[in-house]
Amino acid sequence: MDEFMAAAAIATAHGRLAEGGISIASVSAECGRIGDGGNHRRVRNGDSVTHANIECWQNAGCIGSYEDTILSSTLMPGYLRAGAVVQFGIPKASAGESATVPGVRQWMEFHGVEVVDFDLEECKQLRRQLIGHSPQLWNEDIGK
Amino acid sequence: MDEFMAAAAIATAHGRLAEGGISIASVSAECGRIGDGGNHRRVRNGDSVTHANIECWQNAGCIGSYEDTILSSTLMPGYLRAGAVVQFGIPKASAGESATVPGVRQWMEFHGVEVVDFDLEECKQLRRQLIGHSPQLWNEDIGK
Repeated sequence: MDEFMAAAAIATAHGRLAEGGISIASVSAECGRIGDGGNHRRVRNGDSVTHANIECWQNAGCIGSYEDTILSSTLMPGYLRAGAVVQFGIPKASAGESATVPGVRQWMEFHGVEVVDFDLEECKQLRRQLIGHSPQLWNEDIGK
Repeated sequence: MDEFMAAAAIATAHGRLAEGGISIASVSAECGRIGDGGNHRRVRNGDSVTHANIECWQNAGCIGSYEDTILSSTLMPGYLRAGAVVQFGIPKASAGESATVPGVRQWMEFHGVEVVDFDLEECKQLRRQLIGHSPQLWNEDIGK
């Protein structure tokens, strides 16, 4: 299941990149059903805070409880998305890589979240592609 | 400035409540300019993650840097909104009360955010009004 979801997130990121979007994406699954992939909306409509995971959950709508939810992303969440994982009680998060977000994994684990880091070169490449093509976007995203 | 922003957040919450929305609201200010008030969008369109502050920043659009931004809310942010404050480097957050969100103030302070809690009975009343009228909404919001 974890590997399948990681592959779905990667495929979504490649698809969005091909459409002129950015190369970070998330998918979520509730009770085994894969939800819509999320993507950074900022490039399209000037929305600075609707990150990949956030859009992913917006697409899912109100599900009442997140206790059967798994989140899979190409890049380890920053504190905005990790904060949502902790606040909503999402029990598991997986990421394709985490090189640029030190500390967030440990913080989620401290709050009882199971975290998996696949450490995939393909996901590092997707992130480098974003930083190379849109350094200002990346810097704003990390508060620089 | 702090008191003025708190009053603006409270006025926004009362206004939204009168319109049939919910009674928690935020305003942000950048360089002294008060931004649009945010409100929970979920009641209106089934969006489970666009919280008051999040919508507030969405309304503000891309501002490049948040280093001159102050956030003021009727209720202390949970980890979703606090995560955004930390990730984007917002230096100051004020809240009308914080009775139901233990630990979040300390976590933001650990990350260098200046936090003010006005501990206002009016804001506690607004929060109790929300819990009393919409307990399911409140529970979902805190991951219960």
